[in-house]
Amino acid sequence: MLVIIDCHGHYTTAPASHTSWRERQLEAFAAGVRAEAYRLPTDDDIRASLQDHQLRLAGQRGIDLTIFSPRASAMAHHRGDLAVSRAWAEANNDLIARVVELFPADFAGVCQLPQTPGEGLDAAVAEVRRCVAMGFVGLNLNPDPSGGAFSAPPLTDRYWYPLYETMAELDLPAMIHVSGSCNPAFHATGGYYLAADTTAFMQLLAGDLFTDFPGLRLVIPHGGGAVPYHWGRYRGLADMLSKPPLREHLMRNVFFDTCVYHQPGIDLLVSVIEAENILFGSEMIGAVRGVDPETGHHFDDTRRYVDAAPLTDEQRHAIFEVNALRVYPRLSTLPHQLIENPS
Amino acid sequence: MLVIIDCHGHYTTAPASHTSWRERQLEAFAAGVRAEAYRLPTDDDIRASLQDHQLRLAGQRGIDLTIFSPRASAMAHHRGDLAVSRAWAEANNDLIARVVELFPADFAGVCQLPQTPGEGLDAAVAEVRRCVAMGFVGLNLNPDPSGGAFSAPPLTDRYWYPLYETMAELDLPAMIHVSGSCNPAFHATGGYYLAADTTAFMQLLAGDLFTDFPGLRLVIPHGGGAVPYHWGRYRGLADMLSKPPLREHLMRNVFFDTCVYHQPGIDLLVSVIEAENILFGSEMIGAVRGVDPETGHHFDDTRRYVDAAPLTDEQRHAIFEVNALRVYPRLSTLPHQLIENPS
Repeated sequence: MLVIIDCHGHYTTAPASHTSWRERQLEAFAAGVRAEAYRLPTDDDIRASLQDHQLRLAGQRGIDLTIFSPRASAMAHHRGDLAVSRAWAEANNDLIARVVELFPADFAGVCQLPQTPGEGLDAAVAEVRRCVAMGFVGLNLNPDPSGGAFSAPPLTDRYWYPLYETMAELDLPAMIHVSGSCNPAFHATGGYYLAADTTAFMQLLAGDLFTDFPGLRLVIPHGGGAVPYHWGRYRGLADMLSKPPLREHLMRNVFFDTCVYHQPGIDLLVSVIEAENILFGSEMIGAVRGVDPETGHHFDDTRRYVDAAPLTDEQRHAIFEVNALRVYPRLSTLPHQLIENPS
Repeated sequence: MLVIIDCHGHYTTAPASHTSWRERQLEAFAAGVRAEAYRLPTDDDIRASLQDHQLRLAGQRGIDLTIFSPRASAMAHHRGDLAVSRAWAEANNDLIARVVELFPADFAGVCQLPQTPGEGLDAAVAEVRRCVAMGFVGLNLNPDPSGGAFSAPPLTDRYWYPLYETMAELDLPAMIHVSGSCNPAFHATGGYYLAADTTAFMQLLAGDLFTDFPGLRLVIPHGGGAVPYHWGRYRGLADMLSKPPLREHLMRNVFFDTCVYHQPGIDLLVSVIEAENILFGSEMIGAVRGVDPETGHHFDDTRRYVDAAPLTDEQRHAIFEVNALRVYPRLSTLPHQLIENPS
C-alpha cells in the first residue's frame, strides 16, 4: 500500500485565540509588563481549525501523515527578547502536541525553537528536549532569526554546535526554515525563504560540518531554494573550493523537499537530485493557496507533480515514505497504524 | 550567419595595476588621505589580460560579442564612501571604455555605478551619462550596495526612480547585479548572487514599477536566480497579490540570462520562460572556472547547453542575438560588423 508522508506542514490555520495571545504578548513586552499566561485553544477549536483545511485536503490528496510544525512565518524570532521567544515557542509547541494527541494518525510534531538574534542556544536545546519528551520527531532551525538581516553565523559555525550535539544525541533532524521578514527587501514567501534556503546550502558547501557530525540530517525546504536549478554551479564551486564531490560532501546529510509548485520544477529536481535525498512535502496550507489556471489544481498539490514525474515506483516510494522514515526515525516509534516498518 | 552575443561578461582579469590601485585607494581612505590619481593600465597590459582569457575562450566557443562590465564582485559599494565609490566606478568604466576601443568588434561596454548605502543616486545618474557619451550600452545596478545586509529600498521604491528616468531617456537597460559580500552568511557567487536575483524578481512582482516605466528593461542574471525553478510559486503569488499574469505584469520588462551551468537547468529555463525573455550569457571568466567532469567541458560554456536545449532555430536565434539587440538597442549604433540589423 502506498503511504504518503508530507514532511512540510505548518499550522497556518491555528485558532484565533492562539494568534491573539501572541499579539497581547508582544503588546505586554512593548509596555514592559508581564504577559498573561498562555491557554491552549479548546479541543473543539483545534479540531475545527484542521478538519475543513489540512485534514480535508490531505484526504483529497491521499496524504496519510503530515510532519507538522508551528506556522513558520509567525515564529518571528526578531520580535521581543529571548523570554518572549521562549514563551511563544512553548505555546506553539504545546499546541502542536495537542494537535498530535487529537489526531495521532494524521500528524507528527516538529518544534519551533526559542531563538533570538545574538543570544545563545541553551533555551533552544532545552525546548528540544522538552518536545522530544512529548513525542516530537524533529525541529525547525531558523538560520536567520533577525528576520532578514542574515546576521547569524553560518550554519557551519560552532555557535550552532550545542544544537547539533543535541540532535545527534536524540537522533533528530532539522528543517532549515526562516520566519517572516522584517526587511522590506525580502517578501517572505517569494524572496526570503528561497534566499535563505539557497545560502544555507552554500554555507554547508563551503564548510565541513558533516565531518564533525556525520549523522546529522538537515532538510532544506522549498525544493532546496535555487540549488537544484543551479546544480552545475554548486558542483563547480565544490571543485573550486577543493571540496569532495557533493554526493560525498553534503548529500549524505542534506535533503530537499518537493515544495516546488509546478511540474517542470519537480521534473528538474528529480533529474538532478538522487531520489534518496528528496522528501515529499507540500507546505499545505501555506505560501501559495490558489488554483493554477494552467492545470485546474492547487499550486501546492505537489503529489500530482511527483506522481507525474519520471520516477520508478521504488524512487517514488522513497520520496513519499521511505526517506521520511530514515530522516525522521522517531516516526517509527509513534503509533501510526499506516506506517510500514522501513526495511 | 549565427551571431552570438554574450550579455554577461565581467573584466575579471583586469591588470594587476588596476587592482592594486584599488587597494591603495582604500588604504588612503582608511588613513584619511587623498588617493593617488588613477592611471589606466597600458594598452599592452590590457591586451595581454584579455587575449589569452576572454578572447581565446570566446573564439573557441563562437561568441562574437561580449557585453562587458567591470568585475561585479569588486564593485564593493559597501567600502569607503560615495567619493571613493565614484572614483572607483570612474576608473573601472574608463578601463572598460579602453577595452572597447582596443577591441571594438569583441566588446561593448556596460558601466558600474557609484553607489553607496544610504546615499542618493545623483552620482550614479551622472556616471551613466558620462558612460553613454563614451558609447556604453547599459549599466549594472546593485540592488544591495551594503554587501549583504539588504538594506536598500526595494527596486520598486521611488528611491530608484532618478536612475530609471535616465534609463528611459537614454534607452538603456540595467542588469541587476550585486557585488561581493561582506556578510559571512553569504558566499558571494554561491549564495548572495542567487539570493539577490531571486528577491529582486519578487520585489518587482510585488510592485507595479512597469506601470510607471513601461519601456524599462531589467536583466536578472544567473538564470533569474531561483525564479524559473519556482515559476509556479511566482505565478501563484502574483495571483494571491492580485497582480496580472506574469507575462503581462513583468515579462515585457524582465529578462533572464543563461548563466546556469548544467544542461538540466537550461532545459528548465527554456521550458518555462519564453525565449523572447532569455538572453545568452556565460559570465565567462567568472564564478565557476573549472571543467565539469561529467561533460569534459567548462561549466560556464553555456553555449553548449543552449545548443542542446529543445529550441527552434528561431528561438535560439532570439536567445543568442535578437533579444540582446532589442534589450540593448545601443548595440545597433556601434560599429560591430558582425551584427545584423534586428528585424
